[in-house]
Amino acid sequence: MQKQNKLKVLANPKLAEAAAAIEKALAQRRTLIVAGNCKVLYSGRAKSTLEPGERILIIKEDGSLLVHRPVGYEPVNWQPSGSVFHVETKAGSIEVHAVRQKPRENVRVLLYEIFMVSALSLTDSGEFSLHASEKEMHQAILMKPSLLEEGFKPISYEKKVEPGFVDVYGVDKNGKLVIVEVKRKTAGKEAVLQLAKYINAVKGKADRELRGMLVAPSLGKHVHRLLVTLGLEFKALDPKKCAKVLKKDKNSKLETFFEEST
Amino acid sequence: MQKQNKLKVLANPKLAEAAAAIEKALAQRRTLIVAGNCKVLYSGRAKSTLEPGERILIIKEDGSLLVHRPVGYEPVNWQPSGSVFHVETKAGSIEVHAVRQKPRENVRVLLYEIFMVSALSLTDSGEFSLHASEKEMHQAILMKPSLLEEGFKPISYEKKVEPGFVDVYGVDKNGKLVIVEVKRKTAGKEAVLQLAKYINAVKGKADRELRGMLVAPSLGKHVHRLLVTLGLEFKALDPKKCAKVLKKDKNSKLETFFEEST
Repeated sequence: MQKQNKLKVLANPKLAEAAAAIEKALAQRRTLIVAGNCKVLYSGRAKSTLEPGERILIIKEDGSLLVHRPVGYEPVNWQPSGSVFHVETKAGSIEVHAVRQKPRENVRVLLYEIFMVSALSLTDSGEFSLHASEKEMHQAILMKPSLLEEGFKPISYEKKVEPGFVDVYGVDKNGKLVIVEVKRKTAGKEAVLQLAKYINAVKGKADRELRGMLVAPSLGKHVHRLLVTLGLEFKALDPKKCAKVLKKDKNSKLETFFEEST
Repeated sequence: MQKQNKLKVLANPKLAEAAAAIEKALAQRRTLIVAGNCKVLYSGRAKSTLEPGERILIIKEDGSLLVHRPVGYEPVNWQPSGSVFHVETKAGSIEVHAVRQKPRENVRVLLYEIFMVSALSLTDSGEFSLHASEKEMHQAILMKPSLLEEGFKPISYEKKVEPGFVDVYGVDKNGKLVIVEVKRKTAGKEAVLQLAKYINAVKGKADRELRGMLVAPSLGKHVHRLLVTLGLEFKALDPKKCAKVLKKDKNSKLETFFEEST
């Protein structure tokens, strides 16, 4: 029985039936999915008109609205959460009007023909978590060197330096060479000693001052003293933050869409 | 009959039924809407895990994918168009796997319980058009003065200057005063004369050199000569471009989401 209550769906309803179902779903704060032929008018900071076509309208329980065309991953129109809705039945159409107060923005969806009205009660408390591997942390640092410090310029990464590979290798704003060791979990004494070894290996060959930087989300107990004794530095960096930097780059196309196309 | 073909909907199907309907919809390149309890795993530039919860999965005919939670206007996971799909039925779940080739990115949606599968054939050729009023063009110039020229700094707008109001008023990179007259349609002789009047009104009072700039999407026939004779300038600016600037600002929250939260 509970499962039946999750979903109310009407296939090819008449406009009056559809309007009643839409009003009920909005009143009950259900997630509403409507597929149909519609025109969409937006007015706010600018104005836009979307001529009639067959689309999907989603109104979520928090009052956010999305209009999706049958192609493209971006919505063509939308409103953020907190929008207030009015439904009006007219001759030959239903108007769903979504108003955002601050700034004042209106989206009017005029539905002329409806294929489906679906009202869902969804429960979702699943946690969303982002991860980045150590290698992904390197990439994030290369993409956004200011994650380490302002003025840091990477020269190379995963560079072979006996006894192994230096994670990231660069120059700070004062021209000093920086050798960076990255850990995706709390860094212990081993990580500090590993970094010290690289510093020693490079010391003889470098023609300028050297800095050793241990980068990790946190430093283990009693490790800080060893770090200071060896003249090394610690920079806290969360793999989650690195994942966001990489994701952001992934999303540049989506951002471009919002900049260019709407 | 045609209308019936637009929509196939299953309410509370068994997993096997749902899997068959999903595979068929993908093969037929229909727009697919699935509501159900799912877990979502992403791997690509970074990794993310979304623990189980009740959500809406949309796969469009162009191979784009969206996973929407019951709140928020942003998708929690997505793939752009051109993704390739595999559906696998496992014990107690259906896995929908979306692969993007370049860069390689995987989204795996594991569906444990399905409330609805809806397959739609949507036709949408409606044109999307953006508009901005003259006032909105002023706002866009204030928000992004480089729309006029690099180094332009607005001082005031809709400023009273007998015989009327100057649209935008500012200083160029060389310190010259710039009086801007904005038109949202092709500018004719009247617009030029209007600008000339403002220039004459300000000339006596200003302590620095003056420039008059007519801003419009285009200049009417034979108007250019008059403009040059009066020592005025023309800058082409499309109201559509202004609408995009304003829209972009509206979207800053959405962009921030993609930067901060995923």
